[in-house]
Amino acid sequence: MSEVHAARRARLRDRCAANGASAALVTRPANIRYLTGCAPQGAALLIGPDDDALVHLTPPQDDRDEPLPGDLRAVVLATPDGDAAVAAADLAREQHADSLAVEEHHLTVTRHRAIGSVVGGLPLSDLGGAVEQLRLVKDEHEIANLRIAAEIADQALGELLESILVGRTERHLALELERRLVDHGAEGPAFRTSVGTGPNSGAPRHVPTDRRVEEGDFLTVRLGARYRGYRCEVGRTFVIGTAPAAWQIDLYDLVFAAQRAGREALAPGVACRDVDHATRGPLTAAGHAEGLAQWSGHGVGLEIDEDPRLSPAAMGKLDACVPVTVEPGVHLPGRGGVRIDDTLVVRPLADGGPELLTITTKELLAL
Amino acid sequence: MSEVHAARRARLRDRCAANGASAALVTRPANIRYLTGCAPQGAALLIGPDDDALVHLTPPQDDRDEPLPGDLRAVVLATPDGDAAVAAADLAREQHADSLAVEEHHLTVTRHRAIGSVVGGLPLSDLGGAVEQLRLVKDEHEIANLRIAAEIADQALGELLESILVGRTERHLALELERRLVDHGAEGPAFRTSVGTGPNSGAPRHVPTDRRVEEGDFLTVRLGARYRGYRCEVGRTFVIGTAPAAWQIDLYDLVFAAQRAGREALAPGVACRDVDHATRGPLTAAGHAEGLAQWSGHGVGLEIDEDPRLSPAAMGKLDACVPVTVEPGVHLPGRGGVRIDDTLVVRPLADGGPELLTITTKELLAL
Repeated sequence: MSEVHAARRARLRDRCAANGASAALVTRPANIRYLTGCAPQGAALLIGPDDDALVHLTPPQDDRDEPLPGDLRAVVLATPDGDAAVAAADLAREQHADSLAVEEHHLTVTRHRAIGSVVGGLPLSDLGGAVEQLRLVKDEHEIANLRIAAEIADQALGELLESILVGRTERHLALELERRLVDHGAEGPAFRTSVGTGPNSGAPRHVPTDRRVEEGDFLTVRLGARYRGYRCEVGRTFVIGTAPAAWQIDLYDLVFAAQRAGREALAPGVACRDVDHATRGPLTAAGHAEGLAQWSGHGVGLEIDEDPRLSPAAMGKLDACVPVTVEPGVHLPGRGGVRIDDTLVVRPLADGGPELLTITTKELLAL
Repeated sequence: MSEVHAARRARLRDRCAANGASAALVTRPANIRYLTGCAPQGAALLIGPDDDALVHLTPPQDDRDEPLPGDLRAVVLATPDGDAAVAAADLAREQHADSLAVEEHHLTVTRHRAIGSVVGGLPLSDLGGAVEQLRLVKDEHEIANLRIAAEIADQALGELLESILVGRTERHLALELERRLVDHGAEGPAFRTSVGTGPNSGAPRHVPTDRRVEEGDFLTVRLGARYRGYRCEVGRTFVIGTAPAAWQIDLYDLVFAAQRAGREALAPGVACRDVDHATRGPLTAAGHAEGLAQWSGHGVGLEIDEDPRLSPAAMGKLDACVPVTVEPGVHLPGRGGVRIDDTLVVRPLADGGPELLTITTKELLAL
């Protein structure tokens, strides 16, 4: 694997050189992990003119972190209260870099100033989202990790469906799902698990409460596993009790149709806003424009919320091997609602079209 | 409670005025929560010359968040992809503020530049850690929340000790503790629960692995509950099996003595570095200087790691009503070690001295 990371750093170095920067300082943890395979807390990565160095306080601790690549110099921070980014910038100065690109969207003003004061005359520029752009298209190793993460999430969700739900609180169901994720081999949840019942069902970003599951409720569950750093997402809505009400069936069918339209729109070369439009269109046409989330989906990878964004204002087009979520939902205040959420990988039609990673059924199950 | 928050904002306003800033923009979530009682994701708080406004994307969602105070203007962000801090800065301009202090230690360079470009000629200054300083000394409401958080953590830990531990993994024990925290009324864990067995015991910041508890192990557990936003911390080390080995008893006694010395050193007016020295001294004298954590304890509150820091280089003195941890530990590579961690509130001797919040026994239990 360390050749993979070295190749990624080489690509970043080329990109910096093309922009006239002879060195880059990477501080965003997911970016460091992408370029090195590990991301000790508080670390900073220098892509320098002479060599690359990872400055950190303590060695990586998570047993599933990969060891430091051999071709990367590991520098332990001299003063434990120090800032690894400042120390890494100082290394750039020692290597006689003639400019240093930093992640202005990640560094605070205070840290940026501290870096400026240590590098002397070395001019600082903005690395921008250069590493995030490299991360956009995934290689097959990354997709394999996402596939395992999705399997784990499907397993955890499947087990929950076999248990008794009525009377249990959203908070407890969420915790149980997170325990099951770890049981099945996840490093942890990919994000805070969301469980919404009754009037809370279908709400975007719902934080679990002490409300208990009741007969007749919609139950919306949204969870994901983290596996080797990679994060997936699956969301489903169920109905509790013997038979769904007519309004529940209608709303479910509507969101299901919207989600299917979004999935079917995924293809290399398609504009991100067109996928959003395909997903959002049926919901808007049915009178639910108000209250819709501002996105219909987003990229996933080392972070749960990456580029591309599938939203009305999104720029850019999809590429092959970009994993995204498609996650429309409708929430009727006071009544509840439906969300359906999958993680898929964009693939050309010749390869069978979009690859669905989260395979839990999307039939409306009455539990 | 909303008077409490209004009074806190008034104090901040006074402090800004003393520094020549007629408006302040607060973006750090814990600081927003301290000043308003809630902190919707991505929110920004303007302390303006005319009125105070909380700019946010969506209303607060956690059912335990307090409602927005009535004397605080709630402004919903017009464009969902917008930055609440930029919108709040624009309000400052509309209110004809003549300067705006921002949290340079929290804002990224990119966001700071976006704010600068929206406020026109309005000069930006640095608010620094002004809100963090207000947060240092807690009122009795805050301490009551911490006391409940500590009770919850003690309960969760006590229940774990009654269960069978041998053969279970660190990861599972950590998850079970987090579930028990929620069972007993926590909003969630105060930080990622740490469980270390055998060679992993006693290591600072240990991330739970798949190692299983074995007979003869040291077992170190570090956990905390979050209650109404307030976070406490408790850490204990146990021995698994019938009787501890001689080296285990010796090491435990040493860390216990260091921790007691640190607790007993807590008093208003005492220098933070002196508390560190009292805690660190016995460990250094016993030949364990190498590998000690760089701090012996730290403040807790709305964040788990607040000022003051109890470290050799720490400036400043303790005040009454400042909650801190005292958490020395020794880790012998390959063998394991001991950490003992309490949350206490600094109180004058006349009030009975330091108030111990985490009351789980510190005897060496053989489980």
